[in-house]
Amino acid sequence: MVFILKPKVEQDKINAFISAWESRGFSTILSVGTEHTAVCLIGNTSGIDMDYVVQTSEIVEYGRRITERYKAVNRTVHSDDTIITVGGVSIGEGFFTVMAGPCSVENEEQIVRIARSVKESGARILRGGAFKPRTSPYDFQGLGEQGLSLLLKAKKAAGLPVVSEIMNQTQIPLFEDVDIIQIGARNMQNFDLLKAVGQMKKPVLLKRGLANSVEELLMSAEYVMSSGNDQVILCERGIRTFETMTRNTLDISAVVLLKQKSHLPVIVDPSHATGIRSLVAPLSRAVLAVGADGLLIETHNDPANALCDGGQSLDLNQFEQLMSDLRKRAVIENKRM
Amino acid sequence: MVFILKPKVEQDKINAFISAWESRGFSTILSVGTEHTAVCLIGNTSGIDMDYVVQTSEIVEYGRRITERYKAVNRTVHSDDTIITVGGVSIGEGFFTVMAGPCSVENEEQIVRIARSVKESGARILRGGAFKPRTSPYDFQGLGEQGLSLLLKAKKAAGLPVVSEIMNQTQIPLFEDVDIIQIGARNMQNFDLLKAVGQMKKPVLLKRGLANSVEELLMSAEYVMSSGNDQVILCERGIRTFETMTRNTLDISAVVLLKQKSHLPVIVDPSHATGIRSLVAPLSRAVLAVGADGLLIETHNDPANALCDGGQSLDLNQFEQLMSDLRKRAVIENKRM
Amino acid sequence: MVFILKPKVEQDKINAFISAWESRGFSTILSVGTEHTAVCLIGNTSGIDMDYVVQTSEIVEYGRRITERYKAVNRTVHSDDTIITVGGVSIGEGFFTVMAGPCSVENEEQIVRIARSVKESGARILRGGAFKPRTSPYDFQGLGEQGLSLLLKAKKAAGLPVVSEIMNQTQIPLFEDVDIIQIGARNMQNFDLLKAVGQMKKPVLLKRGLANSVEELLMSAEYVMSSGNDQVILCERGIRTFETMTRNTLDISAVVLLKQKSHLPVIVDPSHATGIRSLVAPLSRAVLAVGADGLLIETHNDPANALCDGGQSLDLNQFEQLMSDLRKRAVIENKRM
Amino acid sequence: MVFILKPKVEQDKINAFISAWESRGFSTILSVGTEHTAVCLIGNTSGIDMDYVVQTSEIVEYGRRITERYKAVNRTVHSDDTIITVGGVSIGEGFFTVMAGPCSVENEEQIVRIARSVKESGARILRGGAFKPRTSPYDFQGLGEQGLSLLLKAKKAAGLPVVSEIMNQTQIPLFEDVDIIQIGARNMQNFDLLKAVGQMKKPVLLKRGLANSVEELLMSAEYVMSSGNDQVILCERGIRTFETMTRNTLDISAVVLLKQKSHLPVIVDPSHATGIRSLVAPLSRAVLAVGADGLLIETHNDPANALCDGGQSLDLNQFEQLMSDLRKRAVIENKRM
Repeated sequence: MVFILKPKVEQDKINAFISAWESRGFSTILSVGTEHTAVCLIGNTSGIDMDYVVQTSEIVEYGRRITERYKAVNRTVHSDDTIITVGGVSIGEGFFTVMAGPCSVENEEQIVRIARSVKESGARILRGGAFKPRTSPYDFQGLGEQGLSLLLKAKKAAGLPVVSEIMNQTQIPLFEDVDIIQIGARNMQNFDLLKAVGQMKKPVLLKRGLANSVEELLMSAEYVMSSGNDQVILCERGIRTFETMTRNTLDISAVVLLKQKSHLPVIVDPSHATGIRSLVAPLSRAVLAVGADGLLIETHNDPANALCDGGQSLDLNQFEQLMSDLRKRAVIENKRM
Repeated sequence: MVFILKPKVEQDKINAFISAWESRGFSTILSVGTEHTAVCLIGNTSGIDMDYVVQTSEIVEYGRRITERYKAVNRTVHSDDTIITVGGVSIGEGFFTVMAGPCSVENEEQIVRIARSVKESGARILRGGAFKPRTSPYDFQGLGEQGLSLLLKAKKAAGLPVVSEIMNQTQIPLFEDVDIIQIGARNMQNFDLLKAVGQMKKPVLLKRGLANSVEELLMSAEYVMSSGNDQVILCERGIRTFETMTRNTLDISAVVLLKQKSHLPVIVDPSHATGIRSLVAPLSRAVLAVGADGLLIETHNDPANALCDGGQSLDLNQFEQLMSDLRKRAVIENKRM
Repeated sequence: MVFILKPKVEQDKINAFISAWESRGFSTILSVGTEHTAVCLIGNTSGIDMDYVVQTSEIVEYGRRITERYKAVNRTVHSDDTIITVGGVSIGEGFFTVMAGPCSVENEEQIVRIARSVKESGARILRGGAFKPRTSPYDFQGLGEQGLSLLLKAKKAAGLPVVSEIMNQTQIPLFEDVDIIQIGARNMQNFDLLKAVGQMKKPVLLKRGLANSVEELLMSAEYVMSSGNDQVILCERGIRTFETMTRNTLDISAVVLLKQKSHLPVIVDPSHATGIRSLVAPLSRAVLAVGADGLLIETHNDPANALCDGGQSLDLNQFEQLMSDLRKRAVIENKRM
Repeated sequence: MVFILKPKVEQDKINAFISAWESRGFSTILSVGTEHTAVCLIGNTSGIDMDYVVQTSEIVEYGRRITERYKAVNRTVHSDDTIITVGGVSIGEGFFTVMAGPCSVENEEQIVRIARSVKESGARILRGGAFKPRTSPYDFQGLGEQGLSLLLKAKKAAGLPVVSEIMNQTQIPLFEDVDIIQIGARNMQNFDLLKAVGQMKKPVLLKRGLANSVEELLMSAEYVMSSGNDQVILCERGIRTFETMTRNTLDISAVVLLKQKSHLPVIVDPSHATGIRSLVAPLSRAVLAVGADGLLIETHNDPANALCDGGQSLDLNQFEQLMSDLRKRAVIENKRM
């Protein structure tokens, strides 16, 4: 159940309202929007007479029952679009933010060169993997801490905020200067990790798991938000189906559903969704047209010799061409790039 | 194995070349494009010395081994894009052809009214179901023959070519005046039906089955083409996955793959792919941006009271708005609507 | 809604009861069991006061609302297990009936030899494909009519009833002497074919489609039964999932669900479900233990040279060993083989 | 590439053989079986002349190239079945070990009562969740550390080894007295956790992820084994498909594949695979018949009031009946319970 408050209610009245509910055993979510402030109750609300509350409280404008299991991420609770700002870059409705970079940080020259190039082409965030989740223990596992420090050198060199994947909560101290923490698809329901990044004060990029429903993605975002971190970016990256011609199946409908049901930014990773370089550009155009808030694109200076995922990476020229194409199209969509 | 012929070879030399192969036990596909004519051999070609053929034949320019199981639909065999023309309407690369109309023909007034309205809005083909495949025998099964005759009245009244679904080959005589024969998703591997429509002289709209791969869709098109009918339109309409929030999962990557691997037109049905009205417009924009050749959209004058699939149908105003939006976007894509 | 009638009600009272409902616009299903006779109403029954009917009718013992969409196949409507008898062979609860034979009938010697051998080993029904649904038009399509006539020779030679797949309703006359009509997985929702075999007077073996749910399989059986044919055998044969190590994924839970929800016999095809010979025997043991009523097993005298599906076929020795193993196990299950 | 050594080779010769390969840059796996000792090379072995090694080494009997990506778990490298012994209980080929207990430890009385009862019925391992992975942050998350200590009380009270799920590697110290560490389905590709439990000296029960292939499960086991822990038990617990009537789809074929390809014990969790109580007993019978090495069954003294997963839990009587049935059947399978 959510109560939308009247405009300009004083803070101590809100606090009293919240305390009253908490003393009755409910948890609460306070959602402060530009137009509305809302208080959402978590718990068994079936016994509450909502109309009575609305009529008797001096601060409540109206109430609504929330049938969905997700509350803090729910657009009903928080009607404004969430815009996340990091290092001067905005992510959310009205923007189309492209994050680019290699699957893995390989060496300083590589990551700095890619960083400068993708920035030139219009990317606003640099991605680069240091800790790599790999199916085989015998495959390249990333450069680890050294990879992170090279990524941070590239951040400085190019002046781009960075995003990188965290593998477990013991790594949190290593990510102090990483601007956006990525939770990979395989960790989407690593709930302890979600709670841990929920206590961080920086944006979390949460990728959909290969077998996870849209609702489960929203519930995982709810873990982060209910732990205290409002800055969650959702990322569709393909689900696992019977089709084998692509690595996964990009669920483009999910983008629309996520934007309808939640106020959080939604981006798409067409590289992992397909695993095929020649599909990245057309799908990126589709992703922009469908209403997503950005892209995560694997880009490499030398895909043929990349240490991982070369087959799905754009080279720097291909990325530049794609960005130039997307910029023209962003105008029609009323999105800033 | 395909042999691309030199330009302007005389027909009797081509015939002799074909006869020579057929006398050796191969089937052949003759593919006449605007730039190239090609002869494709079907059978076990592993024993053929391709280079020897190229060097000794006076009409062959070059040869290529085809690793794919689909031949006639293969872009390697037929490099030009196939453009299908029906009732003055073109379908294929360079065009974006929208087919619209109700799930079911319900009565004359309904179908004529919808036909006129969608034509006004820019639809180029009228769709309308007469024979409806329904999961339950107790659900409305369509008006049958009467439905077809009402559809044909609407065709005349609005001046629009029509597409309707055939359920089995005994119905072929009923479809004489239907311009495009639709093979539904459940019949994608009804091979006898594919062979039967392969002997018709009119375009076939072939929908992807719910559990069928991109390759299987191409193989089903191969059934139609190898039976003698070159006019096949492929239609992506969503596949069955674990996600339950949408009716099916639109596999938008398949559009790009189908266009890369085949020369046939590819359209998308976002209505059945999602089952949700509010997703149809954004997905239609994505479908245009990704490079598809058209759309199949369920449109109804009164979705709330439709006899089937009302929840996924646009009303006539929504359709008009969508078309107006798509027309602007088609300019950027260099597509004629 | 189903009304269970009192014991030994006279037929003309039942007829009058049925007529009364049909005159009010309902369709009815009359289900005659050994213990109960039931009348099921099809249509919108929400306005019927069930208790009033029970109290006022002299022939009704009690009534139940049926929430499932399937009625005639529903165990609530027909509580006895359906036992189908064909050529002296019983199929249904209490029996474990093995059907065996090659994917394709190839020639007289092959099919007769296999027939005699599998009979010797304990198979009670001979399977053999004459019309083969193949993904590629260039693959062997079966011997067709000739294949059927060879199958019928083997039927005589070995004294075994036969099952073979029908591809479309125009073939019905050809199947006059075939004992069980098989509807293949790709035709599970070929509703016109279901209605056509629903008018035949012989058992139908209905295979689950690759992307079809348990409920949809029951609805397809409902098409056959509501067309007048009570003799439906359900067959689980694997569904399509992301797992590629097996051809399909055998959904063994479906066997239990189908037996719980329906009164129809349920058999399993482990050959198509896995596509791997070495899995057929262990899965057959599991299928018996889980409570299924039989098996459909591809068996060939020379799998290495089979014209189709050799990799999943048992040879005649392997089949004999499997049958010998199953016979011992059938004792514990209280099933007659 | 694996080299099978001659019988009774002295250890220092083996060490020298291993050192020689490691000095050339290969990692090695030493697999000591009762009949064979094998040395497996990890790395790019394409340049090795295997026959030359066999001919020139005095300790090698023969060599084989391993095409699979999994090495230590591969039956080719280790031909004996691995039998794991914990607290006097054996798990592996020849045994059928049933692990039972509640989804969640709820209180001392509950877990002790269940422990005593399932032991009486024949369970050899007690399961009980302390840390529960839940889709919603608002659902019961388990009793945590307190739950573990209650589980250990029940272990003592009933004299049963226990298995419980670990959520992340920081919890390892808490699991000191837990006999078997469970890695849940959602953590199957939490590679850091796999490496961490790979350094423990106790058995690991590794559940297959909802969207993970058989090969990926084997690769995750390879992470544990290549980190130094040979005691891995594989667990099939259902995969995610389009079928919604069951919670997941039990992939019973996977059991056979895993036993063929690997030497590790394989058990099945029919409770999570189906989510339906009435399916647990028939599926358990099938699991035994198919050749699995055991079961993991949710059992509760009061399923209707269980804090989680009550709908799929057996009550104590149902469990006792199932065990009694399974014991009779284990005789035919030649398995000790």
